[in-house]
Amino acid sequence: MARSAPHDRYILGVDLGGTNIVVGAMSVDGTREFGMHEIPTRAAMGADAVVERIVQLIERVAAETMAATGASRDALLGVGIGSPGPLDRERGLVIFTPNLGWRDFPLRDRVSEAVGLPATLDNDANCATLGEWWRGAAQGGRNVVGLTIGTGIGGGLILDGRLYHGASDVAGELGHATIDSTGRRCGCGNYGCLEAYASGPAIAERAREALAGGEPSSMPALVGGDLSRLTAALVYQAAREGDRLALEVVRETARLLGAGVANLLNIFNPDTVVLAGGVTQAGDALFEPMRAEVRRRAFKPAVDACRIVPGSLQGKAGVVGAIATFAQQQGLM
Amino acid sequence: MARSAPHDRYILGVDLGGTNIVVGAMSVDGTREFGMHEIPTRAAMGADAVVERIVQLIERVAAETMAATGASRDALLGVGIGSPGPLDRERGLVIFTPNLGWRDFPLRDRVSEAVGLPATLDNDANCATLGEWWRGAAQGGRNVVGLTIGTGIGGGLILDGRLYHGASDVAGELGHATIDSTGRRCGCGNYGCLEAYASGPAIAERAREALAGGEPSSMPALVGGDLSRLTAALVYQAAREGDRLALEVVRETARLLGAGVANLLNIFNPDTVVLAGGVTQAGDALFEPMRAEVRRRAFKPAVDACRIVPGSLQGKAGVVGAIATFAQQQGLM
Repeated sequence: MARSAPHDRYILGVDLGGTNIVVGAMSVDGTREFGMHEIPTRAAMGADAVVERIVQLIERVAAETMAATGASRDALLGVGIGSPGPLDRERGLVIFTPNLGWRDFPLRDRVSEAVGLPATLDNDANCATLGEWWRGAAQGGRNVVGLTIGTGIGGGLILDGRLYHGASDVAGELGHATIDSTGRRCGCGNYGCLEAYASGPAIAERAREALAGGEPSSMPALVGGDLSRLTAALVYQAAREGDRLALEVVRETARLLGAGVANLLNIFNPDTVVLAGGVTQAGDALFEPMRAEVRRRAFKPAVDACRIVPGSLQGKAGVVGAIATFAQQQGLM
Repeated sequence: MARSAPHDRYILGVDLGGTNIVVGAMSVDGTREFGMHEIPTRAAMGADAVVERIVQLIERVAAETMAATGASRDALLGVGIGSPGPLDRERGLVIFTPNLGWRDFPLRDRVSEAVGLPATLDNDANCATLGEWWRGAAQGGRNVVGLTIGTGIGGGLILDGRLYHGASDVAGELGHATIDSTGRRCGCGNYGCLEAYASGPAIAERAREALAGGEPSSMPALVGGDLSRLTAALVYQAAREGDRLALEVVRETARLLGAGVANLLNIFNPDTVVLAGGVTQAGDALFEPMRAEVRRRAFKPAVDACRIVPGSLQGKAGVVGAIATFAQQQGLM
């Protein structure tokens, strides 16, 4: 049988997150997309139940892909899996996930055996960056730094056109680059990590601290007076509605992210920095002052060489990138 | 004529610094070494006079190499040049050097034309890192982060076995990664750069600040009471002699460098960090507390994967690396 053309062969992708699993498929050339179905994950489910859900969802997307294209199962080349880390890529192990409580779990092989297809495993933030590079806002970049900012801050590095993994697959922990070595304690044990200032929970925490001064603000009313319910999304909402204190928190977030991104420009001299995740949804209100802070701090030749853009794939970046990691690791791109 | 064996072919190297020019030659396989002569540079000399000195020294080393080996001029393959940056590698230009006052100076072609050999140009800190990787303390590394700490702090990155240059040849400005974004003003205009804390002049400045408290110390006597003459080397001398205040400055330097190196571990997950330059001469008194600070701050899988070592080539790292950049850019290694 002649080998099919790239648009007639398909790769499945899994984005495993602490709260959701997203599964989809794409043609090898990236022009066609199937599935992108989402279901909740819960730590309490246990690893076996999570694998079962992933496998069911893969089978559903596989069936949909074959139905939509008339392709046979042979046209499905394999599964790229993105997972929170740290990971052992070579052995396909999830070494540890705080959110799911796994240790040394052979996720790649468990999924591969259940669906009867080859599989690859890579870090979720690496996948998101590769996804934006392949089909999203970072297309055309050769040296790309990606930040995914949500509950935590993940990083991905594409250097000289390929994902960079480091000596033991834990490179790119950009949320744990220090911006103030005597500053806020971070969940990782270090002090002053970018994540301790600019992740979603850190933004809510800084807003609570700002409110403690007693200045009038619409934020307490948004959470019925229970400030523990305050989120970055609500801070953004208050800022959009003109709340002065919330606006200050957003501007401060831009300044802090700008300091972190300026660092990355001086270190990597990238052509593209792509920022994705919930925290970047504030749009120009965040990006404009952040870019100004980067210009103020980073070397001019590095600033001149780099565009700083929001991701364009939204919740799909991880799956698209998981598919791309499979393609890259199998020499298909 | 049959092509000679690698140990019968030679590459010349130039390390252009703000205070010295070092020139040497090595066999392509790195086993034999010639020259390594040093002469002073002075900004007041002007670019033409500097080029003239470089060319004279190259001719001297070329003659010595041929005399020592019996090789003909054909066996001299070319000249690798390391220079302070920023540079335009492709066009062979020194875009700007604060110490020499050059702008857009075509150093590579000026040298190449004068000696009648092909030449390459790369950043001095890149060269020092590549030198330590080829023949020094970082041998065997695949992902190597190099810091050269003297008047300033330069950085070099070897990622997946090759020098990483970034989008416009200014990657690796590791001295200008922030460790405290609201901290000390740096010469580069940013705040809290590692260089503003741990370069030679910054160490002397911190020692002067420590002395301002009026505690007894042997340091003022070392400079005849003129604290403006205090240097990092004298702080180290006082520390070796047991001066309490000087010891504190050294330990604080180790802590600050440790914070910076921990950052680099979380970002790059290197197998090797090599630190060279005058400031690293303090040996274990600096390295032991620095390694402890790195262990305290960086992710364990990154710490476990990485050795942190002093450079072993001393003043030769830059020349050896300039020779290696020529070899690497010409596909000889």
